[in-house]
Amino acid sequence: VPLPGEFQLIERFTRPFLAGAGVEVGIGDDAAVLRPPPGHDLVATVDAVVEGVHFGGAFSPEEVGWKSLAVNLSDLAAMGARPLWALVALATPPDADLRWLERVGRGIAHCARRHGTSVVGGNVTAASQTSLTVTVMGVVRRGRALLRSGARVGDLLVVSGNLGDAALGLSPSAPRPLVARQRRPVPRLALGQGAVGVARAAIDISDGLLQDLGHLCEASGTGARVELDRLPLSRAYRAATKGRVDPREEALSGGEDYELLLAVPPARLRALQEVARRARTPVAVIGEMEAKTGIRVVKGGGSLHRPRRAGHDHFHSGRVLGPGRRRA
Amino acid sequence: VPLPGEFQLIERFTRPFLAGAGVEVGIGDDAAVLRPPPGHDLVATVDAVVEGVHFGGAFSPEEVGWKSLAVNLSDLAAMGARPLWALVALATPPDADLRWLERVGRGIAHCARRHGTSVVGGNVTAASQTSLTVTVMGVVRRGRALLRSGARVGDLLVVSGNLGDAALGLSPSAPRPLVARQRRPVPRLALGQGAVGVARAAIDISDGLLQDLGHLCEASGTGARVELDRLPLSRAYRAATKGRVDPREEALSGGEDYELLLAVPPARLRALQEVARRARTPVAVIGEMEAKTGIRVVKGGGSLHRPRRAGHDHFHSGRVLGPGRRRA
Repeated sequence: VPLPGEFQLIERFTRPFLAGAGVEVGIGDDAAVLRPPPGHDLVATVDAVVEGVHFGGAFSPEEVGWKSLAVNLSDLAAMGARPLWALVALATPPDADLRWLERVGRGIAHCARRHGTSVVGGNVTAASQTSLTVTVMGVVRRGRALLRSGARVGDLLVVSGNLGDAALGLSPSAPRPLVARQRRPVPRLALGQGAVGVARAAIDISDGLLQDLGHLCEASGTGARVELDRLPLSRAYRAATKGRVDPREEALSGGEDYELLLAVPPARLRALQEVARRARTPVAVIGEMEAKTGIRVVKGGGSLHRPRRAGHDHFHSGRVLGPGRRRA
Repeated sequence: VPLPGEFQLIERFTRPFLAGAGVEVGIGDDAAVLRPPPGHDLVATVDAVVEGVHFGGAFSPEEVGWKSLAVNLSDLAAMGARPLWALVALATPPDADLRWLERVGRGIAHCARRHGTSVVGGNVTAASQTSLTVTVMGVVRRGRALLRSGARVGDLLVVSGNLGDAALGLSPSAPRPLVARQRRPVPRLALGQGAVGVARAAIDISDGLLQDLGHLCEASGTGARVELDRLPLSRAYRAATKGRVDPREEALSGGEDYELLLAVPPARLRALQEVARRARTPVAVIGEMEAKTGIRVVKGGGSLHRPRRAGHDHFHSGRVLGPGRRRA
């Protein structure tokens, strides 16, 4: 008896997935059975990438798969958690190309292996539009998760990597390093895990620096000052925005950088820098948490910079391809 | 400053969700922080309901919400697990009716409260088609999960509730009890949890009795015999299928019943019946696990019944509204 289409699809899609630590029962039962290490809290999040919204035809299927998992791992990085397990829900038109889906599965498996994560289950359903909804579960030592709410006035704002590259990389004609940052984000897991007990608060800035800093401030009951000249920008970013009226726009609000924003007491900055060095992740101090509510962006001379926008909201902006992830 | 559309949507969609046991950090951070009870395994699964595939305009928004969570809880029931936490990923057209989505949220919250589950996070994204992808996490005492692979030759096949009602209830003109079974399935959690240590194997039969029994047999390395006259049928089912050429078709292969199929050693049948009595869930013995591979459906006189189909596969059948969930 030939396999019905759906089972064949599942078999080919899931073939590259491997089970690792703590997986008692993986793919193939009604649910996965997992054994969290003792003394740890479980950290869990879900995120979706949708065709035509988060990825388009310029993405390779491996890039779609990689990104669908990586954006979730970035959320775990922001909690200081170690990812262990993922569930992958695929929605696809019934006439989808099996080989394309197989390559998506390989992209997921590649990202999973690279970051010590096992794909332990999932679901396949028919839909008019292709999408991947990925759930990631990880662990952090009990009570030690990095929250958004821990920042205090006087904490330094530290950001990883460079800002704005991913937003510029939306254009398929953008220089290759920028496109790679859009399509193949690398979650800052080592930095996040190392920052536990060092940083007071953390958030991933997938919605853009200003918007996510706003969430950090709101959760912590503070304001913040950002120094425009201290934003870390890549050489490719500087070249691509040269001569623009507002060359820092994507760095402030572009979104999808999947970098971490940390609030660090000044006395622990050296320790954080040591963590970053070990994680091989560049970090930069870009401002400070302040008592006055709201976010001030200041230029070198101290004058205020007025950003043109605070961040993306694809429910209003009508952008078809671009960032638009929000935590529910 | 007015809330952007997406944040307003999230606020209204998530308002009825309550946090309960083991929720250290719920909705509002990069990820949820959860504290599983010691000595337990974690049981996790994900499933999606898609507009036009799993629900249509005849469903109320509360029914859509209820069902999106209930189908996942049924998978946990089949593992003998106690559900604790859920993540809800909503995909919706940007111009969706906020009040409709708010009522979907209420349906989820209603099902969650009824079954002791907290919605601890989620995601909202734009898409052309409305869908809900729900992840459920629960716990079972370490090493005690009910698997598909535990059945042995000679075990009795026990099924909960009645079969085929949900498939008949797909038609909006079907009698009300059948429609309710399609739109508002009740996961058999008390039965599943009580069956731990009593049944040897379990599966939920959301894909239809024969198909899911096939999975049970395959995982356990056995065959099975099903006695046609012992299939539990509701009065409404009997009335609706009276005079049909094959009146048991939906009971054998209809799908979406969200009942449990258990493999129980004969010596433990009384114990299982006592568990069912306490769970207020009717159960019926419908056959036996056999050494010969394959599934035989036998009539009263012992002659073989040849089912017209083994189960649904919406990737081949082209059905628009109907069952089609598969475990990846």
